[in-house]
Amino acid sequence: MTKGEDTRRMILERSAEVFNRKGYYGASMADIMEATGLEKGGIYRHFDSKDDLALEAFDFAVELVRQEFVAALKDKRHAIDRLRAIVGVYRAMPDGMPLAGGCPVLNTAIEADDTHPVLRDHARRAMDEWREFVVRVTSKGIERGQIRPEVEPDELATFIIATLEGAIMLTKLYDDATHMNRAVEYLENYIEVSVQA
Amino acid sequence: MTKGEDTRRMILERSAEVFNRKGYYGASMADIMEATGLEKGGIYRHFDSKDDLALEAFDFAVELVRQEFVAALKDKRHAIDRLRAIVGVYRAMPDGMPLAGGCPVLNTAIEADDTHPVLRDHARRAMDEWREFVVRVTSKGIERGQIRPEVEPDELATFIIATLEGAIMLTKLYDDATHMNRAVEYLENYIEVSVQA
Repeated sequence: MTKGEDTRRMILERSAEVFNRKGYYGASMADIMEATGLEKGGIYRHFDSKDDLALEAFDFAVELVRQEFVAALKDKRHAIDRLRAIVGVYRAMPDGMPLAGGCPVLNTAIEADDTHPVLRDHARRAMDEWREFVVRVTSKGIERGQIRPEVEPDELATFIIATLEGAIMLTKLYDDATHMNRAVEYLENYIEVSVQA
Repeated sequence: MTKGEDTRRMILERSAEVFNRKGYYGASMADIMEATGLEKGGIYRHFDSKDDLALEAFDFAVELVRQEFVAALKDKRHAIDRLRAIVGVYRAMPDGMPLAGGCPVLNTAIEADDTHPVLRDHARRAMDEWREFVVRVTSKGIERGQIRPEVEPDELATFIIATLEGAIMLTKLYDDATHMNRAVEYLENYIEVSVQA
């Protein structure tokens, strides 16, 4: 990477965390200047506007989360193991993994749904990809006889994602992993009892 | 109510919706002036600061939600009917009932967890009350033999609330009630199969 590319990536890394913790409206350019150690001009050399930076920083944050899932699922072939691994990744997420502030898709969805259609569309695309991934894992599991044929992949994806994202909210609100641990245990049990063939 | 009390209540009603849609940081005093039709001075006659107004508006919004639950549970005595009624209230919530912008506790939890400890504490208290309510309904149901004795009331409360709050996020993100309907059906089924004695 050139020095310019290094700087661009550093700005994305640090501002992704600032936006994830403080939100799009809560994070100021002063916060981003402080986090990056750059003057406003140094930031605007790489990004046209706060909006432009926020959108790229969101996509960057989503990519960090995506890599966590790729790593967790790498060695898992059985659909039930893959679903369990997906649930397992969430267990760590409220602690600030892979970036402080919790799940970027949840944070951005809540903030942008009524206020910022472009940012909301980025959150929708990230969530689409995420739901489609759970749907594919489930559909393949049904094809291979590993998951019960009566399971509806789209419905299961909504249920799993809703439960885990709600649990991140609770765990961050109370700063207490108990809520995430309970949700993970309920889902693991549900997968064993009602999903596994 | 005196005219001053009327005005105070009108400011709370309208600003509760502005804060719920736009968030604490996203909502400006200009937004609140527009929603109330008052000048800044007219608002500050009743509230010391934007912070003061935001905290009272949040509590006002939570009270509106509380009343929805009171109404839905009024005629229900059996613990299973009461759990079903709780889940049923959420079905309508993403549509803007009782106030536009979705669930105020979810919105405020996500926004305030890393940024505004006082607002976060209000959200915690609202969520405490809400979890304790589900716990009481469940515990009574166990005492009366209506709910299986092996159900852990605290765990069930986390699971139900996490699933429903996550489903509000999905439904508002996509502006599509399918996600809430799926979550409600999963939970209704779960209550029937795994909770009911």
